[in-house]
Amino acid sequence: MILASASPRRRELLGLLGLDFEVVPSDAEELTEGEPAEVVVENALRKARAVAASVPDALVLGADTDVAIDGRLLGKAASEDEARSHLRTLSGRAHDVLGGVALVCEGGEVSEVVRTTVTFRELNAAEVDAYVASREWEDRAGAYAVQGLGASLVAGVDGDLSNVIGLPIPTLSRMIASLQDRK
Amino acid sequence: MILASASPRRRELLGLLGLDFEVVPSDAEELTEGEPAEVVVENALRKARAVAASVPDALVLGADTDVAIDGRLLGKAASEDEARSHLRTLSGRAHDVLGGVALVCEGGEVSEVVRTTVTFRELNAAEVDAYVASREWEDRAGAYAVQGLGASLVAGVDGDLSNVIGLPIPTLSRMIASLQDRK
Repeated sequence: MILASASPRRRELLGLLGLDFEVVPSDAEELTEGEPAEVVVENALRKARAVAASVPDALVLGADTDVAIDGRLLGKAASEDEARSHLRTLSGRAHDVLGGVALVCEGGEVSEVVRTTVTFRELNAAEVDAYVASREWEDRAGAYAVQGLGASLVAGVDGDLSNVIGLPIPTLSRMIASLQDRK
Repeated sequence: MILASASPRRRELLGLLGLDFEVVPSDAEELTEGEPAEVVVENALRKARAVAASVPDALVLGADTDVAIDGRLLGKAASEDEARSHLRTLSGRAHDVLGGVALVCEGGEVSEVVRTTVTFRELNAAEVDAYVASREWEDRAGAYAVQGLGASLVAGVDGDLSNVIGLPIPTLSRMIASLQDRK
């Protein structure tokens, strides 16, 4: 299997799962706007398809994770100001973490979207500043990392927590098993 | 401040928080049985006191994390068989993660206990075996690490997630602020 992602979190989760895989980051162009669940599935498919096109006979895993609130995607923050803005938007409220996952091989494609609801506690300005200063928000959808200091912003989680880290492991395991059954 | 713990997770969380501290692991003898909330507070105090006794004028942070279910503490697993047993106990049910945290200095002591409820999804034997094979359970209370592959076992969290990683950051920040107000 090939993981079409440069994310160290995804690589680590797959490695712990004992799967045999190599990493080939994808250069696919990603959507940033649209209906949130459709965007993450489409991006996961685009990443997997781009790598599958260049590696014959491979099973390629693509994944995309983003944070949706008020019907729109937050995406990654490009600056400290934007990170502060993302965290203020999430403070004291629930949001959805959407994980698109796609498996692409020559025989076909399967894809799914997993939704986990995360509730943030009410953050004051000093807490937002302290989190922004940690720089943990860099390159993270929604400007937080749930497996690090970002855990201290979280008051509750409803659903698969591995999806929030970046790869919905139980869903992925089910998809891989169903592909193997088909063979 | 001195962190009286050898846990790399606690060190990492404190570091991201921007606090200035050094690490002096404690050799205090810990309780393993008793009323769960009392045990984790007592262990946090013992760790902090042991280090405070050897370093004059220091503010020492002690912490202890354990998993409670059916009124008893699970503790760390000492073998693969015990890890399997812990995971089977947690499967499909809610448990409490109890975090004791203590600050000890020459002027006095403060301590608190934080409770976070974690619900595991129903795990089948193959999933338990795969998680045990990852060896992530080693040295972890309850035999799982919520910030790693263990996240894929979790169906829900109610409360502070940093407490499940090993240090209840919002509570600790409040305790430090109240000590500073007193001075």
